Amino acid sequence: MTVEDKIDDKELKDINPQRDDYEDEIIQIIKSDEPAYKKKEELDDYHENDIAAVLEKLDVKERRKLYSIMGLERVSEVFAYLDDPEEFIEELDSELAADILENMEADDAVDILDELEDEKSEELIQLMDKEAKKDIDLIQSYDDDEIGSKMTTNYVTLTLNLTIKQAMKRVVEQAADNDNISTLYVLDSENKFYGAIDLTDLIVAREYVVLETLVTTSYPFVYDHETVDDCIEDLKDYSEDSIPVLDRDQHILGVITSQDLLEVVDEEMGEDYAKLAALASEEDLEEPLVESLKKRIPWLVILLMLGLGVSSVTGMFEHVIATLPIIVSFQSVILGMSGNVGTQSLAVTIRVLTDEELTLRQQLGFVLKELKVGFFNGMIIGSISFMITGLFIWLAKGQTVVNAFAMSGCIGGALWLAMIISSVVGTIIPIFFTKIKVDPAVASGPLISTVNDLVAVVTYYGLAWTLLLNIVHMA
Amino acid sequence: MTVEDKIDDKELKDINPQRDDYEDEIIQIIKSDEPAYKKKEELDDYHENDIAAVLEKLDVKERRKLYSIMGLERVSEVFAYLDDPEEFIEELDSELAADILENMEADDAVDILDELEDEKSEELIQLMDKEAKKDIDLIQSYDDDEIGSKMTTNYVTLTLNLTIKQAMKRVVEQAADNDNISTLYVLDSENKFYGAIDLTDLIVAREYVVLETLVTTSYPFVYDHETVDDCIEDLKDYSEDSIPVLDRDQHILGVITSQDLLEVVDEEMGEDYAKLAALASEEDLEEPLVESLKKRIPWLVILLMLGLGVSSVTGMFEHVIATLPIIVSFQSVILGMSGNVGTQSLAVTIRVLTDEELTLRQQLGFVLKELKVGFFNGMIIGSISFMITGLFIWLAKGQTVVNAFAMSGCIGGALWLAMIISSVVGTIIPIFFTKIKVDPAVASGPLISTVNDLVAVVTYYGLAWTLLLNIVHMA
Repeated sequence: MTVEDKIDDKELKDINPQRDDYEDEIIQIIKSDEPAYKKKEELDDYHENDIAAVLEKLDVKERRKLYSIMGLERVSEVFAYLDDPEEFIEELDSELAADILENMEADDAVDILDELEDEKSEELIQLMDKEAKKDIDLIQSYDDDEIGSKMTTNYVTLTLNLTIKQAMKRVVEQAADNDNISTLYVLDSENKFYGAIDLTDLIVAREYVVLETLVTTSYPFVYDHETVDDCIEDLKDYSEDSIPVLDRDQHILGVITSQDLLEVVDEEMGEDYAKLAALASEEDLEEPLVESLKKRIPWLVILLMLGLGVSSVTGMFEHVIATLPIIVSFQSVILGMSGNVGTQSLAVTIRVLTDEELTLRQQLGFVLKELKVGFFNGMIIGSISFMITGLFIWLAKGQTVVNAFAMSGCIGGALWLAMIISSVVGTIIPIFFTKIKVDPAVASGPLISTVNDLVAVVTYYGLAWTLLLNIVHMA
Repeated sequence: MTVEDKIDDKELKDINPQRDDYEDEIIQIIKSDEPAYKKKEELDDYHENDIAAVLEKLDVKERRKLYSIMGLERVSEVFAYLDDPEEFIEELDSELAADILENMEADDAVDILDELEDEKSEELIQLMDKEAKKDIDLIQSYDDDEIGSKMTTNYVTLTLNLTIKQAMKRVVEQAADNDNISTLYVLDSENKFYGAIDLTDLIVAREYVVLETLVTTSYPFVYDHETVDDCIEDLKDYSEDSIPVLDRDQHILGVITSQDLLEVVDEEMGEDYAKLAALASEEDLEEPLVESLKKRIPWLVILLMLGLGVSSVTGMFEHVIATLPIIVSFQSVILGMSGNVGTQSLAVTIRVLTDEELTLRQQLGFVLKELKVGFFNGMIIGSISFMITGLFIWLAKGQTVVNAFAMSGCIGGALWLAMIISSVVGTIIPIFFTKIKVDPAVASGPLISTVNDLVAVVTYYGLAWTLLLNIVHMA
């Protein structure tokens, strides 16, 4: 380590004097010679996420010992924080594994069960108690893109007939098992969702206040079968700790907590990101090779076929190419740039379509704006190219001034035109996909680039053929 | 409306019997002839976000009336939900505007102040009370990429010497002004951060329990000057309702709530998404034309220059092009496909780098894996292209079988080689950027595509020159 490294390290320490040491502390506690009760006491002071991070640094024996020290409740909480819980579940007796899952929130348990082999998962579910099984069955009954599959069945309910004091007592009773207590849900006499009370309001309310006056009756909610895509923006906008999920009869089935929402947003945006790069879905560090190949090859084959289509169109201009080989060298710029502006327009359009629902009028306005963007950016890029390539062909390729600038005129003009068309294509395709109810994010950047390759080839060689061969009669 | 439309509508209604009607209901209440107190009562049942959505559908006069009906407290809450609060702030007297901002959470107020003209913002801050001004100054003192700029100053603190009953009383006292009460922060005798208590644990605790036993002392926290990029993944992993932000002396300055976190994640991922498409930053629907041009042109100019570089390299192969115009038509496929795999590798690498810190060993393993992905995908795509283009050149272009498959051999071989190299380039460039402490997300898809164009051009024409002109002696 050099002196500079040491100074760097010291500076970092000064800014973050304590962070990141928790894991080491936890390992030390686990490996110490202290009696079990003492270890438990000390471990209670650490966050489950930090203990979860330590598990993989222990061996099987140490892990088993740790579980018995911490107790079932805490182990369940720790397991909810594991990135890859499968291996840790699989090394346990089925009985113990089922107990751990039973104690977790149902949606976390489902996440783990989904990672296990079907057989193992079935076995564990059979070993759970009736109530846990019911919650898990409910959550598993939803498609992955339905909001019901993301909900937590852990929430507190009150009824309208309670006094403030009784209500507070009900909260205390339910708080032991349900830790989402900051919003309390009120049911009417038919057990239907009536509204919500902020725990804060209940806590500060005087005893003689009627409970109903604290209820927000038009509280936001979602239906269990709504798609995640459809309701995620609404849920985000409300920025609540939890929003109830109802069935069609207005009975409350679960809640979407802000942690659930964070996970969903993270997931959805990750998927959009992957799709923009023509990946079938997100990959992580541990992704096996075969899985990665499978996620990437479908788009590549489609893009290859489209690309070969573009090539066969380029082939039609063979006589232009044979006569004017110089202009071929600029093909890659024109195709590249039209792909780039297309991808920019695409990305902007997809984000706008995800964030808001556009009226027809707004859609037209949006296309028009992208057209203008393409027009002005194309003008700038086209002009720069006209000058640079003209000078280059004249000076480096030994053409006459007129011929050089006739060629660079083709290049600049084709760039301009191709960039305008590409901007519009990059806007219209995702809007069209949304219209026919296809996720616009599947219109990936590479797809738009390939489509725009075709536009660029026709524009460029068409212009070259018309202008250079038929008007200037170059050869 | 056709019969089918009606059925469709009915089905939709059945699934979502009540959603989306809140805004209309609110407008009806506001425009009704009922007395003000009655309107206030009815409006109290609606969520602030729904009332905020209605504001833009009213005229100035109706809005002013609505504010006076709802009262300052509620108006402040509604303003926190506005997408574009500037216009509504600007139409108010400065006194009233300052009062509204003063009542908001400091970070929400800062968000609005940042949108106003500097002069107006300064004027409003001067009109606020000392405490609000202090909080706002604190939050504004951080750079946009520091976590301190995202925190909320609304949280509840307890001291260690309290009994359970006293602690609960303190919570009730503070709950009126601070609605983030689900996690309570405990300070030691020097007012330093000591740990956290779950409100649930406090509520269910028996009266004789010592407060300290409820405290998680190794509770996660962040320092105010840490960058958002550095701590966001940690914050996400803890999935807590709030995490404290400390200064270097371990004093608590504010908290990051899960709502703050959701906003930050949304923002960060939106930025990454924009960068993958070579946009300087995210754009929304209302983005003015000039702003859009400014966000897109810088990357386009850089990409143009790189593209012209590729062109001048292509120009070196002019003799190959002049001799074998057929092979030019397949240039676009090779460049396109190598760009596509490069973009895929890039996107995967950026996500992995954002999610975790890799050791050198992991980095090497990752590059090796991407190399393998490029190898196998290249083999598949290369083989398909070899066959299809060979048949095409033989049958449609009237070449001999040998010549046709020699050419398609070049195409397939160049594709294979270019795809391997591109995968590696798409992985190494973002890793290199991370090493030199540049955000890897600036390595956009189009940048990687252009770099890979160069690889592909040299591979393709190099191979064609060697194989077709020098070995097979085609002409």
